[in-house]
Amino acid sequence: MFKMKTLSDNLQGSNASTEFRTVLRREEALQRYFTDALAVEEPLEIHLAFFIEGQRERKIISVTMRTPGHDEELAIGFLFTEGIIKKGTVVEKLEPFVCEQGKENRITLLLSISTIPDLTLADRNFYTTSSCGVCGKSSIQAIRTLSEFLPQEQNDLLISRETILLLPGILKNHQLMFESTGGLHGCGLFSLSGALISLREDVGRHNALDKLIGHAFMDRRLPLENTVLLLSGRASFELVQKAAMAGIVIVAAIGAPSSLAVSLAQEFNITLIGFLRDHSFNIYTGAHRIN
Amino acid sequence: MFKMKTLSDNLQGSNASTEFRTVLRREEALQRYFTDALAVEEPLEIHLAFFIEGQRERKIISVTMRTPGHDEELAIGFLFTEGIIKKGTVVEKLEPFVCEQGKENRITLLLSISTIPDLTLADRNFYTTSSCGVCGKSSIQAIRTLSEFLPQEQNDLLISRETILLLPGILKNHQLMFESTGGLHGCGLFSLSGALISLREDVGRHNALDKLIGHAFMDRRLPLENTVLLLSGRASFELVQKAAMAGIVIVAAIGAPSSLAVSLAQEFNITLIGFLRDHSFNIYTGAHRIN
Repeated sequence: MFKMKTLSDNLQGSNASTEFRTVLRREEALQRYFTDALAVEEPLEIHLAFFIEGQRERKIISVTMRTPGHDEELAIGFLFTEGIIKKGTVVEKLEPFVCEQGKENRITLLLSISTIPDLTLADRNFYTTSSCGVCGKSSIQAIRTLSEFLPQEQNDLLISRETILLLPGILKNHQLMFESTGGLHGCGLFSLSGALISLREDVGRHNALDKLIGHAFMDRRLPLENTVLLLSGRASFELVQKAAMAGIVIVAAIGAPSSLAVSLAQEFNITLIGFLRDHSFNIYTGAHRIN
Repeated sequence: MFKMKTLSDNLQGSNASTEFRTVLRREEALQRYFTDALAVEEPLEIHLAFFIEGQRERKIISVTMRTPGHDEELAIGFLFTEGIIKKGTVVEKLEPFVCEQGKENRITLLLSISTIPDLTLADRNFYTTSSCGVCGKSSIQAIRTLSEFLPQEQNDLLISRETILLLPGILKNHQLMFESTGGLHGCGLFSLSGALISLREDVGRHNALDKLIGHAFMDRRLPLENTVLLLSGRASFELVQKAAMAGIVIVAAIGAPSSLAVSLAQEFNITLIGFLRDHSFNIYTGAHRIN
């Protein structure tokens, strides 16, 4: 159904992900023109197509500002981490749409004729569940209800301190688009021994993670139990939510976590590491998995 | 109608913006427990209440993950930068709602009885306008249609290179919550001579900017013509869009701009500066305003 991708394919950005512009640089009293590479940002409309009594229907699920490339993964990953499609959902086809200006800014995910999606999830979101109104507690509860991969009390995963310290360097070396533009968030999926499995970059960090998870969905690698996720920036609630939906148990971030990210990690028995830089890190939850 | 705020009030975060946790720190072969301050992240539901034929109606406009504090500004700023309320719109009341758990996670903005909001804007967003589908060009076009403060061809604003170079240091010195948590985006509004007018921090950078603009709306300072906006991170399309809606003409970012942010700045005759750090910067558009 899906075309297979090689690791080098995973690590390379397409040309359309970068754009060049002439920029004026001011440095001390000097100024000079140079050609700067910019991270491309363009909207993508994600549509879901499905059958009701033999009739094909279509619904706009989301519009996200993303860096073009790996759009199929982004669409699948987004629908999966939002709980709209499940691990076993059969995706018949992914249909990119090219507009009059030659831009691929819409993608339609066509479900099999026997699959009826839960569209109540498309109309609301994770936060609006509690009778008492939205709050962090009800947001976490919603993920518990939706996730296919529930937190495991017993879990014998172990990762060494040395391996953790190596991850940022590996991510940086492979973040080709960040290297040229300075404008992309990255996330990398690693084995417990620190081997890079896949990497995605995007102007939106949630998109980078959806692409990574969408890729695993297409490769039928979910849940991502024996892996470590590294985030190039901060760990917000949304990112830990997506990791939890994909069954990721160890999440490390170069930046700071938020309060709700830590609460969610605790509730889901996820190991959450923050400030992973300068040869040190903080462990917010799940310290028992670090050797 | 609104309570006035002092500058020190603008620069101080409330206690609820920070949360403390015991964290395990690994540094070289050592490990120790310490108390870490985390940036609080909690959902906020923004409701709009209005009258139709004398009947009070209410509509959920958005749910955003934000750092508590300045919620009134966030609600007003968001509704304004989305084009749902206008500069002159009379806001009768802002009603916070406290849930059973004591959390203020909903705020309702009540319009005067004579104001009928354009709710078509609440049901869609900036990106879905073109018959040809969404794309960057149509996103920019939509802002041109919505914005009250159209780009000015002639504009005699001038800011010196020396002043620009001072801004990051001033922002950093006043980012109290970032200082303690490392987890907050900040944005600062400055006069052309480099005096700090206001500053907001939030786990979401779009929220920080909505708070800043909401504050100006409440103070009746819109459009923010003779000011410089400094962003602590990257300049995405969304942030430049909000700046354009508020009539801001000079935007500087510590990080990189995206391709679409630069296109929008060009279209709106906004001066866009990026990579403002280490005593240098890049000028992407509108170099004529820099002395």
